[in-house]
Amino acid sequence: MKRKYLMTPGPSPVPLFVRDALSKEILHHRTDEFRQILKYVSEGLGYVFCTKNPVLTLASSGTGAMEAAVSNLFSYRDKVITISGGKFGERWSEIAKALGLEVVEMKIEWGLAPSCEEIKKILDDNKDAKGILTTLCETSTASVYDIEAIGKLTREREILLVVDAISGLGQDKLLTDKWGVDAAVGGSQKGFMLTPGLGFITLSKKAQSAVEDSKLAKYYFDLKKALKSYDESDTPFTPSVSLIVALKEVLEHIKKEGIENRWVRFGKMAVATREAARALGLKLFSRNPSASVTAIMSPTGIKSSDIVKTLRKSYGLSIAGGQDEAKDKIFRIAHMGWINEQDLIMCFSFLEQVLKKFGYKFKSGESISRLQEVFYD
Amino acid sequence: MKRKYLMTPGPSPVPLFVRDALSKEILHHRTDEFRQILKYVSEGLGYVFCTKNPVLTLASSGTGAMEAAVSNLFSYRDKVITISGGKFGERWSEIAKALGLEVVEMKIEWGLAPSCEEIKKILDDNKDAKGILTTLCETSTASVYDIEAIGKLTREREILLVVDAISGLGQDKLLTDKWGVDAAVGGSQKGFMLTPGLGFITLSKKAQSAVEDSKLAKYYFDLKKALKSYDESDTPFTPSVSLIVALKEVLEHIKKEGIENRWVRFGKMAVATREAARALGLKLFSRNPSASVTAIMSPTGIKSSDIVKTLRKSYGLSIAGGQDEAKDKIFRIAHMGWINEQDLIMCFSFLEQVLKKFGYKFKSGESISRLQEVFYD
Repeated sequence: MKRKYLMTPGPSPVPLFVRDALSKEILHHRTDEFRQILKYVSEGLGYVFCTKNPVLTLASSGTGAMEAAVSNLFSYRDKVITISGGKFGERWSEIAKALGLEVVEMKIEWGLAPSCEEIKKILDDNKDAKGILTTLCETSTASVYDIEAIGKLTREREILLVVDAISGLGQDKLLTDKWGVDAAVGGSQKGFMLTPGLGFITLSKKAQSAVEDSKLAKYYFDLKKALKSYDESDTPFTPSVSLIVALKEVLEHIKKEGIENRWVRFGKMAVATREAARALGLKLFSRNPSASVTAIMSPTGIKSSDIVKTLRKSYGLSIAGGQDEAKDKIFRIAHMGWINEQDLIMCFSFLEQVLKKFGYKFKSGESISRLQEVFYD
Repeated sequence: MKRKYLMTPGPSPVPLFVRDALSKEILHHRTDEFRQILKYVSEGLGYVFCTKNPVLTLASSGTGAMEAAVSNLFSYRDKVITISGGKFGERWSEIAKALGLEVVEMKIEWGLAPSCEEIKKILDDNKDAKGILTTLCETSTASVYDIEAIGKLTREREILLVVDAISGLGQDKLLTDKWGVDAAVGGSQKGFMLTPGLGFITLSKKAQSAVEDSKLAKYYFDLKKALKSYDESDTPFTPSVSLIVALKEVLEHIKKEGIENRWVRFGKMAVATREAARALGLKLFSRNPSASVTAIMSPTGIKSSDIVKTLRKSYGLSIAGGQDEAKDKIFRIAHMGWINEQDLIMCFSFLEQVLKKFGYKFKSGESISRLQEVFYD
């Protein structure tokens, strides 16, 4: 019997206590019972996002919440700056273009994070830009961006700072209010340990007034309606009831550990993963590695997609390969949500077997020793 | 111990076998295993919608799929006709207006269905209209519209016939292909016995070519992308994995009974519900009653919202009240999805107690006798 292990950066594993909650008897959403759950969930999301402002829950994937950010904060032909150093930065550009905005793309090399000097320059060169759309953890390159530093630049200007925190939230530190983030977007299937199907969005006071002014066409993702319903612990359209019920359990779990403790714990897991890779003589892809996922360069002559396929086929372990220009070059190991230290030990034990099979030379067990040292010494 | 009973027209009850499937271990969506499930689900949806054309599954509520229909089939300032005889007909108008279309509203009295003569006239008067947006079961009035007849009028014209089948599908007969429906929209939380969070949309050949031509802005609901992914049993964005896994079980269940048999069975449940109401001397609200839900007029002097509240508070039974202009006038009992004959007997038994409490006079047990006669004689 082959067991299955999921260590991809979304969906990430859904623990039994959450799956049990998913299978509870269905509630009607226009009842006090459900409204109380939604209220708890909204407050709990505020805790995770580190915001006192509303966090809206949408029945969509994270991409739906990204579209909601764009369609509710801006108007036709508004200029926005996007930071594009991976697949999810590119997604901001695609959405903004699809909705008719003027997009100034700040392209950075995959694997790098944007420098503050460059951001300052692009802000100075585009003083008429209404928003800057960026990413907390760029999943495709496993890089974390310095949102705190970007916030320092944007706070003193009129511009809105919009952050895709979908894969980073819960592992990579994000202080939405303190850092001056106007809208942060999340999804259920990463740090929240849930099945996909919920999108989240925070709105600062400045963002809420931008929502009032926005003239882009929208209906399902109309956040003006959603904010009104939010005040009554309600939603404008039928919410994804069972996922919200399960999210309540997730948030209780996260609160119990404490969000700061989680940042520290995942930070340590990320350090351990990098050290383990180096112990095998492997190189890392990102120069600003995230606490949520690690991208490792495949050894010369071995396609990363072959490593990923063999791990899945021979050991039941799912990790992620590279996308687009990183295809065949990198493989990515997630440490987010429910994934823990022992999962990483299991993962590197399989990885060593596969690398051996492909003829790559290293000292057997070295990665495991290194992980154990970081975790337990 | 008070038990809880859910007989609202969405969410409707989720049976244990579906809840068990919801709580299965999470799958990664970019795997053959998930693609096979999605393929099965797409074919099964085709069976329920009675179409050979693609049925796309979206991570959204049914309203999201309604927006997808409008944003993908039309362009800015296109003229569309909406049939508005209840809250969900009105939703078509709202969506179309929000997205910048020119809307010709055919208003009909709540509780009525549109007449073919009127539809023919409005089609003749608006030969430049690109689409007609209507409803299979108008949930707010519990009325079924004659889509077959409307299809006969639209098929010989250029116009697209778009049908919101969210609450009717599975109980009220719908032959998407045979009747010439170009796009039919569904949702997971009604006849499909699932928790909310999935929207569905069918596209005829004519609709598929309209998707190619449409110029309205969209990203998350871009059906051109979704059709492309569909051909590879994939989705453009992260799908709602657990709901799709559970939907597979639902579709197996529906296929086993047979969709035609379900139409007959729910049709009989609807007849029984109407007869039971009449046996208590109550009047029906709709002149074209649906097989999915029945709207009953509250007796003079009794607010329907009081009946609904008391049923919930004293007996744990949730049914629906009236919305907007039918508020306080009607109460609505669903017979869809997992709801069966015995649920109706339980429902009317509680209803008799509540009506008695409010001083309404009728012969005790009369509704139950009538239900039993229809079901078992």
